[in-house]
Amino acid sequence: MTLPGEFALIARHFRKLAGPGALDLADDAALLDPPPGRQLVLAADAMVAGVHFLPEDPPEEIGRKLLRVNLSDLAAMGAVPLGYLMTTALPPGTPEAWLAGFVAGLAADQAEYGLSVLGGDTVSIPGPTSLSLTILGHVAPGAALRRAGARPGDEIWVSGSIGDGALGLRVLQGKLPADAGGHLARRYRLPQPRLALGQALSGLARAAMDVSDGLVQDLGHLCRAGGCGAVLRADAVPLSPAAAALLAGDPALLPLVLGGGDDYELLFAAPSGEAAEVAARAARAGVPVTRIGAFVEGAPEVQVLDAAGAPLTLPRLGWSHF
Amino acid sequence: MTLPGEFALIARHFRKLAGPGALDLADDAALLDPPPGRQLVLAADAMVAGVHFLPEDPPEEIGRKLLRVNLSDLAAMGAVPLGYLMTTALPPGTPEAWLAGFVAGLAADQAEYGLSVLGGDTVSIPGPTSLSLTILGHVAPGAALRRAGARPGDEIWVSGSIGDGALGLRVLQGKLPADAGGHLARRYRLPQPRLALGQALSGLARAAMDVSDGLVQDLGHLCRAGGCGAVLRADAVPLSPAAAALLAGDPALLPLVLGGGDDYELLFAAPSGEAAEVAARAARAGVPVTRIGAFVEGAPEVQVLDAAGAPLTLPRLGWSHF
Repeated sequence: MTLPGEFALIARHFRKLAGPGALDLADDAALLDPPPGRQLVLAADAMVAGVHFLPEDPPEEIGRKLLRVNLSDLAAMGAVPLGYLMTTALPPGTPEAWLAGFVAGLAADQAEYGLSVLGGDTVSIPGPTSLSLTILGHVAPGAALRRAGARPGDEIWVSGSIGDGALGLRVLQGKLPADAGGHLARRYRLPQPRLALGQALSGLARAAMDVSDGLVQDLGHLCRAGGCGAVLRADAVPLSPAAAALLAGDPALLPLVLGGGDDYELLFAAPSGEAAEVAARAARAGVPVTRIGAFVEGAPEVQVLDAAGAPLTLPRLGWSHF
Repeated sequence: MTLPGEFALIARHFRKLAGPGALDLADDAALLDPPPGRQLVLAADAMVAGVHFLPEDPPEEIGRKLLRVNLSDLAAMGAVPLGYLMTTALPPGTPEAWLAGFVAGLAADQAEYGLSVLGGDTVSIPGPTSLSLTILGHVAPGAALRRAGARPGDEIWVSGSIGDGALGLRVLQGKLPADAGGHLARRYRLPQPRLALGQALSGLARAAMDVSDGLVQDLGHLCRAGGCGAVLRADAVPLSPAAAALLAGDPALLPLVLGGGDDYELLFAAPSGEAAEVAARAARAGVPVTRIGAFVEGAPEVQVLDAAGAPLTLPRLGWSHF
């Protein structure tokens, strides 16, 4: 069965996602009383079939990934989720079951992360499914984590593990063997926005961002924003057991791990004397963190060192459209 | 010349649109201090090449239309524009000149309507250009115009003129002859969001919305939201001279005029004794308004009458995707 009319579709599927202020998705716009005394945090990320997800990915996980990549932007600012607006451009032959699954995934993550839909638009497209989400969150005034602020001597930290998403995509494409537990593919399809960690780092991290385009490239963004360089110790970068096993079998995968993107981990700078405090806050947030290098004086460039301290040259430095 | 890398593209084109809070589009999210004591108004509309605009439309006007259809949603709520986030999914072969024109159009309308970009995302798409915009505005608490509220006896009003957009699309498609002044095509490409009128109607109009899917269908939405019927006098519907001339030559165009959509005028209900006040406020806002019928007791249906008072049956009742 393909899609019913636009209005039936909104009533049957999207309305169940609507929260306070969404006016049942039946008005021209949503009304929102902003949380008193807070700053709003706003971001928007788009996802296109065949570019950001595989058309055959389960629709539940596409919905969840769309929400989570946006939640990851809120996490990078230390913000608390508030709500979102979403536009979906769907090819005319889209099965209604696909849409039902997509909405079920969104509903599950709305419950998990405590936000709801405020509004949006649903249109047809003579091309691939094209999704866009604008997310709203809030922070105490002045408390947002920012990309600028790292200083020479600050330590570089990263949450969770790096490389799983990029490896997982290759597993799903049949270019790499799957791990037994399916960990890598799951990490590609279902990022873990580090909201609790981002909120816990406010007032402690000097700079932060989420890793979406590749660790080395994104670290370069922190360098340019802070006006300093960085030295990254490749052997210190945290790997999942599945990623470590693949890398042990084929060391040529290292550039993909360090530069492939789709990690959605937090990358941040903290003063060198604060390691214990960083660890304590991360433990309370329930998210592992690892020190992987330091910011240094000099040009805004990233130097990657191997286990012996020798410079590594990486052929691939992150994802860019076009 | 086709597009440079994603980051160069943001720096070269989109950054000039960034306003306060956008953090130069160089952070993970924007930071916004909401206007104290105001409610936020939020809407999102998407536009796809070949569906909502013609691929050969001037890029300046595509940018302006994208912003204006969203501004029209703010107008329908009586809101003041604040800012917007935008995602653009562009085919890899997009000429950089196209993007420069698109951004120039947005810049012109940012100046005209007093808002700026807060954030967004730019991605590639193996398909048609797919644009999405989320707009933010604000109103005094409780002052927003809503779709629900029309009561039997209230008069139906509409701003500007109806049918130009739908006729203009047919002119651009070569299905209808162009008018000498190019008015109809211009109205299709460049809607006029009725912001001043929407703000002026707060506290007076009982219900309001913008006409985007066709006058008759959208009036039906006001009926369903208000739990009443409506009688629409076709001969009272305001037409531009160009639309009137076409209709005089071919009366069979009436269903297209009344149901074709792309008008972006305000449709609203006002108490029957308030015609002079409506007219006075509209005059101060600089927007012509016309009474075109009345809400009535009964089922939430729209009855269209001809000049002799006889019921008209319209074959086409508005636009729906899918």
